[in-house]
Amino acid sequence: MIRIVVDCFGGDRSPAAQIDGALAALSAHPDLALVLTGDEPTIRRRLAETETPYDPARMEIVHAPSVIDPGEKPTDAIRLKRDSSLMTAVRLLSDGEEEIAGLVSCGSTGAFVAAGLLRVGRLRGVIRPAFCPILPTMNGGIVGICDTGANVDVTPAYLVQYAVMASLYLREVYGVENPRVALLNIGVEEEKGDDLRKTAYPLLRQTPGVHFVGNMESRDLLSGDYDLVVCDGFSGNVLIKSTEGTSLEMLKKLKKDIYARPLYKMGALLMRRMFKEEQTYMDYQNYGGSVLLGCSKVMVKGHGSAKASHVTHCIEQAYRMQLGGLSAKIEQSLENLPQELQK
Amino acid sequence: MIRIVVDCFGGDRSPAAQIDGALAALSAHPDLALVLTGDEPTIRRRLAETETPYDPARMEIVHAPSVIDPGEKPTDAIRLKRDSSLMTAVRLLSDGEEEIAGLVSCGSTGAFVAAGLLRVGRLRGVIRPAFCPILPTMNGGIVGICDTGANVDVTPAYLVQYAVMASLYLREVYGVENPRVALLNIGVEEEKGDDLRKTAYPLLRQTPGVHFVGNMESRDLLSGDYDLVVCDGFSGNVLIKSTEGTSLEMLKKLKKDIYARPLYKMGALLMRRMFKEEQTYMDYQNYGGSVLLGCSKVMVKGHGSAKASHVTHCIEQAYRMQLGGLSAKIEQSLENLPQELQK
Repeated sequence: MIRIVVDCFGGDRSPAAQIDGALAALSAHPDLALVLTGDEPTIRRRLAETETPYDPARMEIVHAPSVIDPGEKPTDAIRLKRDSSLMTAVRLLSDGEEEIAGLVSCGSTGAFVAAGLLRVGRLRGVIRPAFCPILPTMNGGIVGICDTGANVDVTPAYLVQYAVMASLYLREVYGVENPRVALLNIGVEEEKGDDLRKTAYPLLRQTPGVHFVGNMESRDLLSGDYDLVVCDGFSGNVLIKSTEGTSLEMLKKLKKDIYARPLYKMGALLMRRMFKEEQTYMDYQNYGGSVLLGCSKVMVKGHGSAKASHVTHCIEQAYRMQLGGLSAKIEQSLENLPQELQK
Repeated sequence: MIRIVVDCFGGDRSPAAQIDGALAALSAHPDLALVLTGDEPTIRRRLAETETPYDPARMEIVHAPSVIDPGEKPTDAIRLKRDSSLMTAVRLLSDGEEEIAGLVSCGSTGAFVAAGLLRVGRLRGVIRPAFCPILPTMNGGIVGICDTGANVDVTPAYLVQYAVMASLYLREVYGVENPRVALLNIGVEEEKGDDLRKTAYPLLRQTPGVHFVGNMESRDLLSGDYDLVVCDGFSGNVLIKSTEGTSLEMLKKLKKDIYARPLYKMGALLMRRMFKEEQTYMDYQNYGGSVLLGCSKVMVKGHGSAKASHVTHCIEQAYRMQLGGLSAKIEQSLENLPQELQK
């Protein structure tokens, strides 16, 4: 049995999306058990409303009366709001009686990172945990970005560790055999970029277990030529948000322009299914959340606007990470790095 | 008469696009004079081929036998290839007998920046010149990004200067009255980001002549809520290339998907004009190039894949910068900054 705790109070559609998503994951995986944290009466009410049958032996509820607000200062929030749904989940993860493998939350990103770093702790050898979201590429594949904001001040050693951890993640969870790893840079030539990139480049090339293919410019993220891009958390954040933002803005503009003329509306009617598929394809709700790689337990951060299906994806991601034994593999691989690239 | 020098050998379609673009700009502006640099026989041949009538009194050709390759190391290239089309243009700009206001080139970006910094020089008070390209927003407006790669290692003072220079540029060249300036960051709250952003935020708020509206996440670049975004050259480069890359990849995917089914093709036929307009709207060829703000003369870098129309836009950009007296206004505004934010 793989046990995962779900923080039910965090995200625009919580707790309904979290609870519905949990029920769907539970019925899909007979060897999955879930613990839901949050206001117990509210959770029970929702469970009664949905009338979805579930195995009570695999579904536990742990009451947590308060909620961490996205605007709260993360370090204060995790220190002062111990009875929040997130911190209750973290406590169960760290020292619950029955072993819990992972945590899923769609709440405050800052509090999630702080809790991961300060309460859950790191795997052996990890300098700093890092986010690794996955995006669909334009040729039907996927691409991972590590890091997208857990650490804004980084050294070359961080980038090497990101490459090691995220390569394993792509292999174990998404079946990408020998992930092609690129370094995000302002040009493809080896000598491009600032000191961080210039120092990281040769290190990445020498790292065992990392299939480094060179620098990548941000315009090629969705080309399908790369499986993983490593970067500092600041530029990774700029990269993922501009990629998501541009595709959303474009779809919005297309929609507006279509409604401007009856002829276009007619054309769009014929293409309705295609547009729907396009939208589904671009919608990050249909993919998993952002994994915080390098924590001693599996930590998955879902989108703040998560619908039930997205929560299900996040739970399944945590489940597959545990099933693949990712944590042990990360520790083993980091041990093989030169001493100066380990914690 | 406003005189501008055009480097005709640099860019995938050079020199044809450069020469054709120059002719179009010349006929549109009676008070514009151009100097073309590059292999004279080739230029003369193209001028004869096009058979476009032009006023020879406003069109000069200066022979330059060599070309700087995009792969060459910039500092070596500008030192060793003095007879290249770019460096000949730079020499005319710096110490030609008749006063030349600006330079347009679509060649090596690195050599362009190095030449601007080391040969053309800076305006009084400028710490470092910075690129400021312009993108179309999704509501029909424009947004500027400063910097997109001229400087990858920056201090808060750079960002303040970018805000001052680019605000003036948007006002003088694009008629944006009181540009709303944002700081590119990983969240909108004031305390977000690394030390650079945290220090720059209050400085930007205090800067006279800068209408600072706070942090912006990259996903909102095209929203139309901002006229200018300031950032370090690394993340600005990531931002512009991922924005351009995503829209191009999406259009490519749409096209491919449309061709997959006859029904969709039929629908697309009805929407042909819309798709064409969409493509025109997104195509950066239809906008000007990237201005290197802060140089003592006007410097405009066009796209490497520039077509003639893009070259025309770049020349007109340089023309309007000179017409608006931008350089003097930048020097005046920088003088008003506190001493520690000036060169």
